Amino acid sequence: MVCKGLYRALCIREKYMQKSFQRFPKTASKYLRNIDGEAWVAKESFYPVFTPPMKKGEDPFRTDNLPENLGYHLKMKDGVVYVYPNEEAASKEEPKPLPYPNLDTFLDDMNFLLALIAQGPVKTYTHRRPKFLSSKFQVHQMLNEMDELKELKNNPHRDFYNCRKVDTHIHAAACMNQKHLLRFIKKSYQIDADRVVYSTKEKNLTLKELFVKLKMHPYDLTVDSLDVHAGRQTFQRFDKFNDKYNPVGASELRDLYLKTDNYINGEYFATIIKEVGADLVDAKYQHAEPRLSIYGRSPDEWSKLSAWFVQNRTYCPNMTWMIQVPRIYDVFRLKNFLPHFGKMLENIFMPVFEATINPQAHPDLSVFLKHITGFDSVDDESKHSGLMFSSKSPKPQEWTMEKNPSYTYYTYYMYANILVLNSLRKERGMNTFLFRPHCGEAGALTHLMTAFMTADNISHGLNLKKSPVLQYLFFLAQIPIAMSPLSNNSLFLEYAKNPFLDFLQKGLMISLSTDDPMQFHFTKEPLMEEYAIAAQVFKLSTCDMCEVARNSVLQCGISHEEKAKFLGANYLEEGPIGNDIRKTNVAQIRMAYRYETWCYELNLIVEGIKSGE
Amino acid sequence: MVCKGLYRALCIREKYMQKSFQRFPKTASKYLRNIDGEAWVAKESFYPVFTPPMKKGEDPFRTDNLPENLGYHLKMKDGVVYVYPNEEAASKEEPKPLPYPNLDTFLDDMNFLLALIAQGPVKTYTHRRPKFLSSKFQVHQMLNEMDELKELKNNPHRDFYNCRKVDTHIHAAACMNQKHLLRFIKKSYQIDADRVVYSTKEKNLTLKELFVKLKMHPYDLTVDSLDVHAGRQTFQRFDKFNDKYNPVGASELRDLYLKTDNYINGEYFATIIKEVGADLVDAKYQHAEPRLSIYGRSPDEWSKLSAWFVQNRTYCPNMTWMIQVPRIYDVFRLKNFLPHFGKMLENIFMPVFEATINPQAHPDLSVFLKHITGFDSVDDESKHSGLMFSSKSPKPQEWTMEKNPSYTYYTYYMYANILVLNSLRKERGMNTFLFRPHCGEAGALTHLMTAFMTADNISHGLNLKKSPVLQYLFFLAQIPIAMSPLSNNSLFLEYAKNPFLDFLQKGLMISLSTDDPMQFHFTKEPLMEEYAIAAQVFKLSTCDMCEVARNSVLQCGISHEEKAKFLGANYLEEGPIGNDIRKTNVAQIRMAYRYETWCYELNLIVEGIKSGE
Repeated sequence: MVCKGLYRALCIREKYMQKSFQRFPKTASKYLRNIDGEAWVAKESFYPVFTPPMKKGEDPFRTDNLPENLGYHLKMKDGVVYVYPNEEAASKEEPKPLPYPNLDTFLDDMNFLLALIAQGPVKTYTHRRPKFLSSKFQVHQMLNEMDELKELKNNPHRDFYNCRKVDTHIHAAACMNQKHLLRFIKKSYQIDADRVVYSTKEKNLTLKELFVKLKMHPYDLTVDSLDVHAGRQTFQRFDKFNDKYNPVGASELRDLYLKTDNYINGEYFATIIKEVGADLVDAKYQHAEPRLSIYGRSPDEWSKLSAWFVQNRTYCPNMTWMIQVPRIYDVFRLKNFLPHFGKMLENIFMPVFEATINPQAHPDLSVFLKHITGFDSVDDESKHSGLMFSSKSPKPQEWTMEKNPSYTYYTYYMYANILVLNSLRKERGMNTFLFRPHCGEAGALTHLMTAFMTADNISHGLNLKKSPVLQYLFFLAQIPIAMSPLSNNSLFLEYAKNPFLDFLQKGLMISLSTDDPMQFHFTKEPLMEEYAIAAQVFKLSTCDMCEVARNSVLQCGISHEEKAKFLGANYLEEGPIGNDIRKTNVAQIRMAYRYETWCYELNLIVEGIKSGE
Repeated sequence: MVCKGLYRALCIREKYMQKSFQRFPKTASKYLRNIDGEAWVAKESFYPVFTPPMKKGEDPFRTDNLPENLGYHLKMKDGVVYVYPNEEAASKEEPKPLPYPNLDTFLDDMNFLLALIAQGPVKTYTHRRPKFLSSKFQVHQMLNEMDELKELKNNPHRDFYNCRKVDTHIHAAACMNQKHLLRFIKKSYQIDADRVVYSTKEKNLTLKELFVKLKMHPYDLTVDSLDVHAGRQTFQRFDKFNDKYNPVGASELRDLYLKTDNYINGEYFATIIKEVGADLVDAKYQHAEPRLSIYGRSPDEWSKLSAWFVQNRTYCPNMTWMIQVPRIYDVFRLKNFLPHFGKMLENIFMPVFEATINPQAHPDLSVFLKHITGFDSVDDESKHSGLMFSSKSPKPQEWTMEKNPSYTYYTYYMYANILVLNSLRKERGMNTFLFRPHCGEAGALTHLMTAFMTADNISHGLNLKKSPVLQYLFFLAQIPIAMSPLSNNSLFLEYAKNPFLDFLQKGLMISLSTDDPMQFHFTKEPLMEEYAIAAQVFKLSTCDMCEVARNSVLQCGISHEEKAKFLGANYLEEGPIGNDIRKTNVAQIRMAYRYETWCYELNLIVEGIKSGE
C-alpha cells in the first residue's frame, strides 16, 4: 500500500509535468513504466524549450523575424484562457484542441496526495528512508571522500571557481548589494541633479528637488541611513522585511531607483541591473535569473514592462529572466482595483497569449517573452488564507470577496494557464515557461504538495523538514530546490538550523541562491558569499560545492545549448554518464553514488508493488 | 581576598606593560592608584612608539637619515641581551642602566597568578561577573538597539564600509587567497618559463624545468590540485594544516612562491604581497598586519629578510609588518643546527640590537625595523612540552636537550629581550615593538596567563572560555584579542561554538582577523568575508561590526598619526570621549555603555578592598 501510494504520487507528478512541458526525470519514468508493465520510450517532445543564446552579432531585440498572426481568438473561461481557431469557433465554444486543465481531476489528485501524506504507514516508511539516505551518505563520505578529492585534483584546469554556477533565485529589485545601490544613488545625483525625474500631483521634481523634499542630501547617505539591509528586526517579520525595499524608508526612492514604471521609464533601475549583469560577465562563470514583477492589477503591465526591457536594452548574456506574480489580490480588491480574481488572472495571462498568437502586433512583448524562462509566485507564505481549495470554491470570476485565495488556488490557476500557454507556444516553435514558485519558506505543508503537482522546481523548500512524505517524494522525483540559507537566516530560520546540509546529504536536488543581495549580503560577489558561508558553516567539500553548482545549472532556465556547453553534451542523461567532470568538476564517484542510491530507492517501490507488499 | 587578588594581578600586568612600553589602560591605572591611595598622573612616556606614516613623496627606504653609531657593546647573559656603554664596562659587567628583567620576580609574579586562577572564591566571583556582564549587555541591547541604530543612521557619510578596519592577524605567506596564488603561478609561467628560478644540488632549473621535474603543467593547475585550502581533513590536525603551505604538496613551490630566501631572492613572494597590498589600497579602508618569519636558526636571517624587504621595495601604506618566531627549537636542535636555546635567542635578537646601536652599519635592517611594529610567537599550542618553567629550569645557554621549552619559557625570553630593546630604542627616538603572540588557540591555560603578564595583545584567545579568572582579567585590563573564527572553524572549533559573540557581548576587546586567507577564505576580500560571516552567523548589528572594526584599529600597530586620523583626535582617551562617531560609526550610546560597565567592575574591586571584604 505504501509503495502503491508513492507510485501513484509520482505518476501524478509525471502527468502534470509532461503535459505542461516541464521536467520529470527519465530514470523515474522508466521505473514507473516498469511497474505499469510498459516499455519506456524516450520522448524529447516533453522537454521545455528555452531561447538559444544570441549568435555573435545577433541583436537580442530584433523584431524582423517575428512569426505571423494566427488570427486565433481568446476567451478566459473559469480562470483559464481558451484558444479558438476563429471567431465562429469561439462563439460556438469549440476551442482548439489543447491540453486544457481539468479542475475535478486536479482536485481528485490533490485529495489523493492530501490523504497520502497523512497516512501512518507512508509516514513511517518515508521517515525511515531519508534517515537511511542520510546515514548512507555519511558512510559514503567516510569511505570515498579522499577518492573524490583525488578525482578532482587530477581534473585539469577546472575547479570550483571556474565551474558554472547560477543564482537560481534572485529578485531584480534587490539584485544589487546595498553598497552598489548607495553608490548608484550618489553617482546619479552627481550627473542628474537638475534632471526632472519625479512627478507628484502638484508638480514635477528634479532629482535635487526630490532630495530636498525628502530632507536629505545624497552625499550624507550611508548604508545605515539607506537602511535596506535586513537585520535582527526582520526575523519572523516578513512585513518589516518588505519595507526594507524602500531606501531611507522613502517609497519615492524605491519608485525612482527600483521600479520599471516611473517618470524616467525605469532608466535608473535598468542601468543598475545592467551593472550587475556586467559584473556577472566579468566574473564569467556566474549567472543569475532575476525576477521582474507582473502584478495583474491592470492589463497594460506587460506592455509597459516589455517596453522598459526593450527600450533600455536590458539584456545580459549571463542573465535569464523570470516573471514573479505577487499573491496580493486581496490588496487590489480592497482598493477596488479589481472586480474579481478572474480579472487578475486575465491581466496576467491574456497579454502573453495575445503576443503568442500575434507577435507582430506586440513586438516588444514578443521579444521580451523570448528572454523569459518562467513564472514565480511570491509572497509571505506564513499568512494563512483560511480558505481551502475544493470543488466548492468560487470560480475566479466569482471570487469577488476581499479575502485572498489560498496558495493552492493561486497555484492551480497559474499552472493551468501556463499549461495551455506552453502547448500553444510549443506548437508555434516558441520558447515555453517553467513554473518555479516560492514554496515551503513558511506556511502550510499543502504549499509543497501543490508544488509537487504543478511546479518544475521551487525556491526555499524549508518546510520539507516537516513532512517526511513530501521530502521523500521530492527526492524520488529529484525536484530542484533553490535554497537561500542567508535569506532564511534573516527571516525564518537561523543559519545553523537550516536543512541545506541535511537535504544535500540525503540527495535532494539542491542549489544555492541569494534571494535578495540588497537585503542580505555584504560583499561585491553575493553568490560567492552565499557559497562561501555555506562551505564554512556546513564544512562542504569542493565536490559538494561543485555538485550544488551543477544542480543550479540543471535547475535554471538557460538554454539547452549553453547547458551542453557548461555541463557537457550528455547533460540530459541522468547519473555519471551525464556528467562531464572536465566541465563540472563533480567527481564521478559522487555521481555514481547519487545515481545508484536514487535507483535503489526507486527500485524498492517496484519491488514493493511486485511482491504485493 | 578576591578583590585583593584581582587588584594585584592587574598591578602585575601594569608593571610589565609600562616597563616595556606596551599598553595598559589609563582608566584601570586610575582605579589601581585609587586603591593605592595615590594620585594618578598621566604619563605619555609609557606609550609605544610607531613610525609615523610616510610624508608625501618620502621614500620609505631612505637611509640618509639613519642615526649614528653609539659604540655600545652587547652581550647575551642568560638569554637576555645586555647593553654596555663600552668595551670596558662590558668586561667589568657594568651594563648601561636599562630595565633588565628579573627572572625571580617574574617567577614570583607568575606563581602568584597560577595560585590565583585556581582559588575557589576567585573562580566563583569571576564566573559570576562575566555572566552578569553578558546578561547586562542583552538588556542593553533590548533597550537601546534602536537608539544605537538611529545614531548611526543620523551619522552622515560614514558606514561600516568606509570605517577603517585592520586585519590584526595575518601571515604573509598565506595573505593571498588560493585563487590569487593560482593566478600568480600561471602568470609567472607565461612570463618567466625560461628564467632560472630554482637550484638543486645537481643543477639550476628554469621555471619550465621545475614544473617538468614536478610532473605538472601550470595550465592544468586548479585550486583543487593546488590544495592549499584547509578542509575537513585539517580539523584538529595542525600538522596537516602546516602541510597545506606547500602548493600541490611540493615544497619546491612553497620555496619559490612563498619564501623570501630563495634563488630569485623572494621576488615572486614580494610581488604577490605587493598585489595584496594594492588591493588593500584600492579598498582604501582596509589594512593588514602581515607577519614575516625569523626562525632564530642562523644569525644572518635578519640581514637576508631586510635585504629582501628593501630590494623588492615591499612597502604598502595599508600594511604594517610584524615578525613571527616559530617555537621550533626542538626541530633545529634535533638536526644540530643549534647548540642550545640561548643561540636561538641570540640569532633572533642580537642583530636587532646591533642595528639599533649602529644603524648606519645595517642600513637595510634599520629601514626594515622602522616598519616592524611587533613580535609574534607562533606554533601549534596543543603540543605540550611537559616542562614547567621554574627557577630550576636550565638557563637558555644550558638548554641543550632536544625537548622544546614550554610556551612560558619562550614567552619570557621574548618579552625580556623586547623589554630591553624597547628601552634602548625609545632612548634613541626609534620605534618600539609590541609583543603580540598567538595565545589560547589551544593548549594549556598557562599560555594565557603568561600572555596576561607579557603581551600587549594576543591572537585567538579561544581558551579564555575555559578560565573565568583569566577571562575576567582580560576584560578588566581590556587586552585586545584578534579572533579568527574561520581559522578556528577549520582547525580547532566549529564556527557556531566560537566564543566570539560571547566575548564581544561581555565587553572583551575583540577584533576580527583572517589568519590565513590562502587556507580559509574563498572571496577576493578575505577580511570582508570574515566580517560578513560573523555578521550573518552571530547576527551582528552595524554598531557591533563598527565597534569590532574600531577595536582592530586600536589594537594594531599603525602609527599614532593614522589612528588619530581614522578614529578621531581623542582616540587615546577611553570611553565615549575618545570616540569620534563621524569617523568610527560606533554609537556613543554603545561607548557609554561599555565605559560605564567597565568602570563599574573596576570600582567593585576598589569597594571590595576598601570595605575590607
